[in-house]
Amino acid sequence: MQKLIKTVAELREGIDVVRRRGQSIGFVPTMGALHEGHLSLVRAARAECGCVVVSIFVNPTQFGPNEDFSKYPRTLDNDIELLAACGVNMVFCPSENEVYRKGHDTWVEVGAAAVPLEGECRPGHFRGVATVVLKLLNMVRPDAAYFGQKDYQQALVIRRMAADLDLPTEIRVCPIVREPDGLAMSSRNRYLSPAARQRALVLWKSLVLANELVEQGERDARTIAARMREVIESAEDARIDYVALVDPDSLRPVENIEGPTLAALAVKIENTRLIDNCILRGERRG
Amino acid sequence: MQKLIKTVAELREGIDVVRRRGQSIGFVPTMGALHEGHLSLVRAARAECGCVVVSIFVNPTQFGPNEDFSKYPRTLDNDIELLAACGVNMVFCPSENEVYRKGHDTWVEVGAAAVPLEGECRPGHFRGVATVVLKLLNMVRPDAAYFGQKDYQQALVIRRMAADLDLPTEIRVCPIVREPDGLAMSSRNRYLSPAARQRALVLWKSLVLANELVEQGERDARTIAARMREVIESAEDARIDYVALVDPDSLRPVENIEGPTLAALAVKIENTRLIDNCILRGERRG
Repeated sequence: MQKLIKTVAELREGIDVVRRRGQSIGFVPTMGALHEGHLSLVRAARAECGCVVVSIFVNPTQFGPNEDFSKYPRTLDNDIELLAACGVNMVFCPSENEVYRKGHDTWVEVGAAAVPLEGECRPGHFRGVATVVLKLLNMVRPDAAYFGQKDYQQALVIRRMAADLDLPTEIRVCPIVREPDGLAMSSRNRYLSPAARQRALVLWKSLVLANELVEQGERDARTIAARMREVIESAEDARIDYVALVDPDSLRPVENIEGPTLAALAVKIENTRLIDNCILRGERRG
Repeated sequence: MQKLIKTVAELREGIDVVRRRGQSIGFVPTMGALHEGHLSLVRAARAECGCVVVSIFVNPTQFGPNEDFSKYPRTLDNDIELLAACGVNMVFCPSENEVYRKGHDTWVEVGAAAVPLEGECRPGHFRGVATVVLKLLNMVRPDAAYFGQKDYQQALVIRRMAADLDLPTEIRVCPIVREPDGLAMSSRNRYLSPAARQRALVLWKSLVLANELVEQGERDARTIAARMREVIESAEDARIDYVALVDPDSLRPVENIEGPTLAALAVKIENTRLIDNCILRGERRG
C-alpha cells in the first residue's frame, strides 16, 4: 500500500519504522507532473532498495521572479496513480509552509559547478535546488537518491554538495529518457503547442549532428557549436540561451574535443525554455 | 576504552556499530585546547547519551586571514587525557585534508543571525562554522550536539541551521563556565600574560554592572552600554569591538530593556580577542 504523507513529522515516523525493519531506502525527489523520465528513476530505486520514497514538491526557491513557478504543471492525482503502479511505498507531498517554515534563513551554496550555463541564465536557481535537496535528504535519510541526466548540471551540483557535506547518501544519475522522435522528456513539454512541439526537435537534432561531426573526425568545438546553432535556429522562433561544449566535470569550455565532452543547450521555443545534453565521445588521437 | 579516530571512514564504521547496538549518540564538536567549559558539555552528553563522541579540529575556514589560526593552541595529548577521564567513547581528530577534501566547494550560509556582532567583526566566520558543523553532524549523525553559551551567536546560528535544514539532531546549549574570579573560560585565555589576564576581568565586571543597573531599574540600553564601556576602558589597552544590547533571538539592537536582553561584548586585551555575554532579565512593567 502506497502511503500519502503531507508533514515532515509523519514522514520521519514512517522512515523510522522502515529503518527499524532494516530496509534500505531509495529516494526520488520530483516536482511532480511526472513522465517516463521520472518513472525510470523510480524503477531504478525500486530495483535497488527495500523502500522507495518519492517527493512531489514544486520548490519555489529554485524559480526566478520571471520564471514559471505559478504555472508549473501540477497533476497530483495522476502522479500518485503512476507511482502506485511502480510500487512506491511513500509519496511525500508537503505544502510550501511545511518545507519552508517561518524564519527560514539558511542556504546551501555550491561554487564553480553552479556558476556557468543554468547558473548564469537562472541566478539563484542552484542555491534553491541545493537547499531543498539537502532538506529533503535530511528528512528522508535515504541510502541512495536518484536524479536524471537531463538536468546534467543539477546532478553535478548535487554530487558536489553530497561529497562536500559528507552526506551518507549515494547520488545516482540515470540516463535521459526521450520520446520516440528524440525529444527529451520534460514536464515543461506540455506547455508546447503541437507545432512548437515539432519545432522543439531541433534540440535533439543539433545533438545528433554534434555526435556525427565528432564521429567524422571534427574536433573544433567552435565549428561544432556553430553547426548546432544553425540547426536550432532553423526553427523560426528558437531563442538560444546557450549552446556549450564543456568539460563534463568542471563545465569549463573546451576548445578541442579530445575526450568525453558535454554538449549542453538551453533554448526557448514559443516561450517554453527547454534544456538537453549529451556526452560527445571524442577520442584522444596521436 | 576511548577510541582515537583520524579518518571519516573509521568514524562512520564506529558510528554504525553504535547505531546497530541501539545506543544514542551525543556529540561535542571542539577545536581542542580543552578547558572546563568544554568538559561541561562532555559531561552533559555523558549524562544523556549512550555513546559520547568529541571532535577536535581547528577549522581553518572559520578564521579570517589576519586571525590566529596558525597560533591557535593545540594540546592534543592533554585533551585526550581529559576526555578519557570524562568517559568519552570516541575522539575524532581528523587532519585538514580529511575534512576538506580536494575540490571542496560547498558552503552553508545562515542569514540574519550571522550578520551582526561576530559576523560583522569576522567576515566569513559563521560560514566556516556552519559548514564544518554541518559536515561533522553528517559524519556523526548524533541524537544531540552540545554547544556553549559563551559563543552565544554561534549557538543561535547553529540552531537556525539545524531547524532550516531539517537536521535530525537536537542542539543543546549549556551555560558559560567561568574562572573563580568571573573570567569566562576560553582556549584563548592562555594567550594572556598574567597582567593582561587580570585586566581581562573588565569584561565580566561590565556584565555584572549591566545586571546591577537593570536590577536597580535602569531600562535605557544606551545608558547601560555607556557604563559598560567605561568599565572596559578602565583597562588601559582594552580595544572594544562591540558592546551590544540586543534581542536574544533576533540579535537586533534594543532601546529599552523590557524583557530578556542579551548583553554581548568582544574586546581585545593585549592583542587577544575575548568575547563574553549574559542575559539581562529586564521585566516588563506597567
